[in-house]
Amino acid sequence: MPATASLIDRLTSLVPAGGVLADPASLFVYEADGFTIARARPAAVVFPTTTAQVVAVVKAIGEAGVQIVPRGSGTGLAGGCVAFENGVIVSTTRMNRILAIDLPNRVAHVEAGVRNIQLSDAVAAVPGGAPWHFAPDPSSQRASTIGGNASTNAGGIHTLKDFVSSNHVLGLEMVLPSGEVLITGGQNGCYESGHFDLPGLICGSEGTFGIITKLWVRLVPRATNFRTVVGMFPSTADACEAVSDVIAAGMLPAAMEMMDGRMIQVIEDAYHFGFPPEAAALILTEIDGIPDLLDAQAADVTAIFNRHHAFGIQTSGDPARRAMLWKARKQAFGAIGKISHSYCTQDACVPRSMLAQVLRKIDEIGREYGLNINNVFHAGDGNIHPIFLYDDRIEAEVQNTLAAAEKILQYCIDLGGTVTGEHGVGVEKIHLMPYLFDELTMAQFVAVKHAFDPEERINAGKLIPSDKVKITLLKPGRQAPQ
Amino acid sequence: MPATASLIDRLTSLVPAGGVLADPASLFVYEADGFTIARARPAAVVFPTTTAQVVAVVKAIGEAGVQIVPRGSGTGLAGGCVAFENGVIVSTTRMNRILAIDLPNRVAHVEAGVRNIQLSDAVAAVPGGAPWHFAPDPSSQRASTIGGNASTNAGGIHTLKDFVSSNHVLGLEMVLPSGEVLITGGQNGCYESGHFDLPGLICGSEGTFGIITKLWVRLVPRATNFRTVVGMFPSTADACEAVSDVIAAGMLPAAMEMMDGRMIQVIEDAYHFGFPPEAAALILTEIDGIPDLLDAQAADVTAIFNRHHAFGIQTSGDPARRAMLWKARKQAFGAIGKISHSYCTQDACVPRSMLAQVLRKIDEIGREYGLNINNVFHAGDGNIHPIFLYDDRIEAEVQNTLAAAEKILQYCIDLGGTVTGEHGVGVEKIHLMPYLFDELTMAQFVAVKHAFDPEERINAGKLIPSDKVKITLLKPGRQAPQ
Repeated sequence: MPATASLIDRLTSLVPAGGVLADPASLFVYEADGFTIARARPAAVVFPTTTAQVVAVVKAIGEAGVQIVPRGSGTGLAGGCVAFENGVIVSTTRMNRILAIDLPNRVAHVEAGVRNIQLSDAVAAVPGGAPWHFAPDPSSQRASTIGGNASTNAGGIHTLKDFVSSNHVLGLEMVLPSGEVLITGGQNGCYESGHFDLPGLICGSEGTFGIITKLWVRLVPRATNFRTVVGMFPSTADACEAVSDVIAAGMLPAAMEMMDGRMIQVIEDAYHFGFPPEAAALILTEIDGIPDLLDAQAADVTAIFNRHHAFGIQTSGDPARRAMLWKARKQAFGAIGKISHSYCTQDACVPRSMLAQVLRKIDEIGREYGLNINNVFHAGDGNIHPIFLYDDRIEAEVQNTLAAAEKILQYCIDLGGTVTGEHGVGVEKIHLMPYLFDELTMAQFVAVKHAFDPEERINAGKLIPSDKVKITLLKPGRQAPQ
Repeated sequence: MPATASLIDRLTSLVPAGGVLADPASLFVYEADGFTIARARPAAVVFPTTTAQVVAVVKAIGEAGVQIVPRGSGTGLAGGCVAFENGVIVSTTRMNRILAIDLPNRVAHVEAGVRNIQLSDAVAAVPGGAPWHFAPDPSSQRASTIGGNASTNAGGIHTLKDFVSSNHVLGLEMVLPSGEVLITGGQNGCYESGHFDLPGLICGSEGTFGIITKLWVRLVPRATNFRTVVGMFPSTADACEAVSDVIAAGMLPAAMEMMDGRMIQVIEDAYHFGFPPEAAALILTEIDGIPDLLDAQAADVTAIFNRHHAFGIQTSGDPARRAMLWKARKQAFGAIGKISHSYCTQDACVPRSMLAQVLRKIDEIGREYGLNINNVFHAGDGNIHPIFLYDDRIEAEVQNTLAAAEKILQYCIDLGGTVTGEHGVGVEKIHLMPYLFDELTMAQFVAVKHAFDPEERINAGKLIPSDKVKITLLKPGRQAPQ
């Protein structure tokens, strides 16, 4: 395409040397994010290093009539940053400077490409900074960017206590598809403000409004004293009821994670914690707070676990064991790679009181489609993550995975849940949006999108259906409504 | 106006008997909210009792080409629900049913006209409900509605720990200006969801998008054990630094309220706590949490107070004294009525580290305009409330009040603050929005407004300037840009 060739020349002139990738070998990496079923080759990937360069790049792409596709580290799980129809990816990963750490006002000012863990490490390294951190902790936090966390409104393992990214983003700088630079929200710890909450709206918009270039984020106290309570259960139903009862008792653990029997074995094989093979479910609870009280709280959790037939309960205050348990939990998805050629992580939310029912249904659907489905998820906040094990070289298995995932998501919607807890809609779930939302709500979403991007220049066909960009995935059966 | 007369007939046919007020004596009450400087007589006030009636009413008013003005209890402080140009007020106060209290999922479903305290009282009354409540606690909570709290994104005395209304509103039903019924957000404790955060956007939109008719709100644990620590200070600067140091020490009190010397005397005269006359500032701190630790935390606060020259420090765990202190604090504005013919409460936010500087400036501006200005405010979150004492029968005092308020707000903006912490923009501060926000942000606000209300049928000329409705207040000098 000649238009694309001249666009690439123009982009190359706008960013520092090495800032445009356009050869097929380099582009291969950028064909997908963590949802590898959705693949498309971009026309190019551009790496601006300043907001001014983003402005110039956005104008150039827009004038060429090509879709602008924002991307952070590409750790998303719903295809939100995949460039269909020869779109150009604008990556923020070279905008990775921490601009200010303001401890008195508990705010950090960062470029969008700063990695999640990079910020907390930097805060810990400044004088007096050790007690503070950026709280959202997605499992991808070593790689994922803060701009990407905001775009998907990422949570993490500690979402139960710390909430999601939008609770921690105070202000944003965003380049609109027009090339204008919108600065919105609080910039100095002034949390409240009298106007439409644009930062809150932009969090979770998955790059459909513009490219986030800078953020002002909240720094909150880092917990320093912990107990981990690990309990095994004879059934997932027992485990789910134990989770509900802990919350109903008025406790607010920092995290309550659940794994089913299959997942326990995967973790055990990789990490050798000594988890018993007869466990059908495991709950990993973390309590933090005042040192003198932790043992009593752990005892309360243990008592509730025991009422639900738990066994092998282990309580520990050892930081090394805690670090190992969380490492195992965060790398659980990776460990799956040892036992399955391919896997697909699904993400949905249901009211906490319906968790046991949903897990039964997932098991039933797995048997119906002849699929192994492992579960490791944020039980405390009702956020499930069934993991489908399949082989992507066998078309029938891909189709069964997609069909089973679909049935699970629809079941969650029917129970009053939603199609994503933290990983976004992207292209993966866009066709379910009209099942989840009525026509008026969908029209309202489109109207709000148009308030930022009237010509649908940026990431069209993601999150909300677009007439402009109809996305057809390489693998059939999983595509936007035509 | 004949159009209005026929409209009133039509409205009367749409709601139950007694549901339309149109006689001047009745309308007088609805000429203003708590910002009594902004007054205008509505053409009528309508009281629908169901969402279907709101739909019919909104369509009828819209078809008549008359502005729709939503109103809760009218406790706002910025003229946000005043009906200019013969607008019709749609009041939600007769939609006051609590539809469901779902303790397992910690959610309540209410009509918009349910009063704030009514919900918490109802929750406490159901079996097992005593430990839970709806957390936002504006001083108006005995009167203000939950729909109104959401519209202004109200905070309250415990905002420091509990945050503002948008953190507690999970989902909303809203009648759009078109008459369509938008239902958005989580409805059953499923907090996270993958789409634009419309509930978060609607919170704080001050009735400029539609009429909120129902809400799903979060129920959170009610604190049960407290210490109140009251300390006097020889200067407001000392008090402000003490507040900063408490927060910097990593403590998170449930509330940190400050009063200046004038305000202490007003409270002392009304309630007789025994506060010493030489106190230039008072901080009322509330600590909640685990009973065994409260005394140690209170001692930490006391030590910090002492470092800043505090005197007369009193720590108490007595629930009766606590109730009395909070009653005094919440009724502080009312107590002003004893010493001044009129008063106007201003509302702004600044970074906490700049509180001492702002209070000095307020004092200086007060002297410049020959006005007594009392201060009672949420120090912990940097949310100031200077109260101007004046006599509204003397035009020069009104003008001085407006001019002094203006200077204070501009100073707060210059320091990186904003024009409201919790009371909204309404008509009062609309002319400062272009001073606070750049042109692009203002245009973006308008675009978002138009995504809900393209024809500006509802509450135009509030919050963001409108070409359609230019508001001229009865008192000059305080109006939207022409």
